[in-house]
Amino acid sequence: MSLTLSDTAAAELVTGSVYPSTARIDAFLAENPQLPTPVLVVDLDIVRERYLRLRRALPSAEVFYAVKANPDAAVVGLLAGLGSNFDVASLGEIDLCLGLGIAPDRLSYGNTVKKEADVAAAYARGVRIFAVDSAVELAKIVRQAPGSTVTVRLASDGDGADWPLSRKFGASTDEVAEQLLAAAEAGLDLGVSFHVGSQQRDPRAWEAPLCAVAALSDLLAARGHRLSAVNLGGGLPSTHFHSTGPVEVYGVAIDAALEAYLGTDHGLRTMVEPGRYLVGDAGLIRSEVVLSTPKQTDGGRRWVYLDIGMFNGLVETQEEAIRYRMRCPGTRGPLEPAVVAGPTCDSLDVLYEREPYPLPVDLQVGGHVDLLSTGAYTTTYSSVWFNGFEPLQAHYLPVSD
Amino acid sequence: MSLTLSDTAAAELVTGSVYPSTARIDAFLAENPQLPTPVLVVDLDIVRERYLRLRRALPSAEVFYAVKANPDAAVVGLLAGLGSNFDVASLGEIDLCLGLGIAPDRLSYGNTVKKEADVAAAYARGVRIFAVDSAVELAKIVRQAPGSTVTVRLASDGDGADWPLSRKFGASTDEVAEQLLAAAEAGLDLGVSFHVGSQQRDPRAWEAPLCAVAALSDLLAARGHRLSAVNLGGGLPSTHFHSTGPVEVYGVAIDAALEAYLGTDHGLRTMVEPGRYLVGDAGLIRSEVVLSTPKQTDGGRRWVYLDIGMFNGLVETQEEAIRYRMRCPGTRGPLEPAVVAGPTCDSLDVLYEREPYPLPVDLQVGGHVDLLSTGAYTTTYSSVWFNGFEPLQAHYLPVSD
Repeated sequence: MSLTLSDTAAAELVTGSVYPSTARIDAFLAENPQLPTPVLVVDLDIVRERYLRLRRALPSAEVFYAVKANPDAAVVGLLAGLGSNFDVASLGEIDLCLGLGIAPDRLSYGNTVKKEADVAAAYARGVRIFAVDSAVELAKIVRQAPGSTVTVRLASDGDGADWPLSRKFGASTDEVAEQLLAAAEAGLDLGVSFHVGSQQRDPRAWEAPLCAVAALSDLLAARGHRLSAVNLGGGLPSTHFHSTGPVEVYGVAIDAALEAYLGTDHGLRTMVEPGRYLVGDAGLIRSEVVLSTPKQTDGGRRWVYLDIGMFNGLVETQEEAIRYRMRCPGTRGPLEPAVVAGPTCDSLDVLYEREPYPLPVDLQVGGHVDLLSTGAYTTTYSSVWFNGFEPLQAHYLPVSD
Repeated sequence: MSLTLSDTAAAELVTGSVYPSTARIDAFLAENPQLPTPVLVVDLDIVRERYLRLRRALPSAEVFYAVKANPDAAVVGLLAGLGSNFDVASLGEIDLCLGLGIAPDRLSYGNTVKKEADVAAAYARGVRIFAVDSAVELAKIVRQAPGSTVTVRLASDGDGADWPLSRKFGASTDEVAEQLLAAAEAGLDLGVSFHVGSQQRDPRAWEAPLCAVAALSDLLAARGHRLSAVNLGGGLPSTHFHSTGPVEVYGVAIDAALEAYLGTDHGLRTMVEPGRYLVGDAGLIRSEVVLSTPKQTDGGRRWVYLDIGMFNGLVETQEEAIRYRMRCPGTRGPLEPAVVAGPTCDSLDVLYEREPYPLPVDLQVGGHVDLLSTGAYTTTYSSVWFNGFEPLQAHYLPVSD
């Protein structure tokens, strides 16, 4: 690879993607040149634009923002004001939402692994939607959360997703059916959920699980029960290195699958749980090159060490799953592949080695590398103080009107 | 596997290892039954015993405790009082040590990836030992830390280590020679360092790098320079699932290698950087079973979900590299393999799946699972608030006299 391009132009060409403007973030960084790196800057205008756009693209679905993607009060508060509901993973996230004045009936406790005491505490706070994927977990809901909606999670193969799902979550169709029938007997309201995998590149990935949901709905009807909700999970992508279609394409595909399998008048409460899609593209991490050197022990390849890595924000580069776009302000290229690593003494703190990253040859020690679309799954994934490095700091640019 | 054994007896049989007593930790846990889990309890008596034992086993080497393994003031302060020196990875760790009254000449700035401003700041604070593995990094030391000792790091293949080293660190013998000669020209004091990989099971792993050190020493001598220090790195193990020999065996092997390659009167300042060895075995994490269920989607295998996982303390289970010993108080067995996973909604938060872990069949939801030898690389590796879970809390039991 030997292109002569600079900054965002290079990134755009490399990715082939259209991605949101970083103009407000760039202005903020220009006004604050002394800001210590690494630093995440999030443009809340983009979060708002994404939320409104998703509502238009998939109007039949209620949005439950996956708080874990970025639980900052600035993000959660903005989305609350726009009318979003919230998918929460723990009592900690529930209390965060309640503390921001969000009513408990706007929360879905989506973790299928919950202490029974936490189920009881959530119910006491007014939470009425709980996810399960096992009979053992369902029994906790039956005991501690009478009359709630239970969403039983179907397993998914995660094909087409950059951040795959494992066998950790979800039950077989037979198990889901058994749990739904048991839940019905216990007087719970019935839902089915699934997750097609995070950063899902295939808009048709929702088809197969929706087909299974239809079969489950029929089975329940035949037994005199009624499925009342379907949770489409997350998976809507942000704009990383490998391009994906716009959300409108996903909206059309999902709507078509809902109609094909469940009919136009299915009457189901339809939920969707975007996390990365809403906040990923809104964030940019500015980092500094700490060291850049060829390594004879690695066939002479260039290694670029940043002041951000696996343990202070970029854990999603684990196994090189998520490939962020990068840009290098002030460089002119040409680009040549480099191994990219983090600043700690840990040998696993390497971001891109199997597939090195095209970076300008004139990138200097002390120069900046900006990692784009890093608003999701960065801040709270940071380690507390590994190697004596502080967790990733973040700034949130308020909505502009 | 179908043994009828309980608690530590089972763990001992499974591992075949002799490991330190958890008596004081057990007493503390018994006295504090309401302690929220997960919780790490560290017995500082064991840290002290380990330090003194290492000093006896390898009296020729000065101990530089790798602060990153556990930077709690209780640990660092204890070791400072016993006479230890400290290997630090960042300015943050330097300031931690100085804040505890440790003199800067007892610190070695062992990270080979440092901002030039941090080198200058460390030097201004009195630090005089710096690691490098590239000419670019060496130039920072020449500019910012005149007259210091520079330890140039040799690459190692990490064979025999549970937590392998990658190509991230170290230079070839030729590169090390070049850097040493350049450092000599710049008036720096000369050292060589290497690292045989963390949790190194082979006591003879120090031989090959010490042979290379001898060659470098000869080369320097031929050019009229003198090697003055050798840093043997870390790698001394704690007692995990796969057994290792006692530290005395390592001491004998390392001493023999020093003598064989460098001679009995080598006159080199010899440094060793234990982290895991000093604090690993001193810690125990008590966790609670949140969910235990067979999974039809995984061939009926039992999955046990704990309230601790990859993102709140056990990141070293990544790729199943470190296999902690576990015990399950109050169970009676028999043991059967189970997949062990953490509590978050992240699919990567699975500890042992490729090689499931033998756990008692009567292990119940709400029961405890204790993870042994977890005093190192747990607390500060914890994420800040991922999924709304707090970082791992820790208690330190003071030395008993």
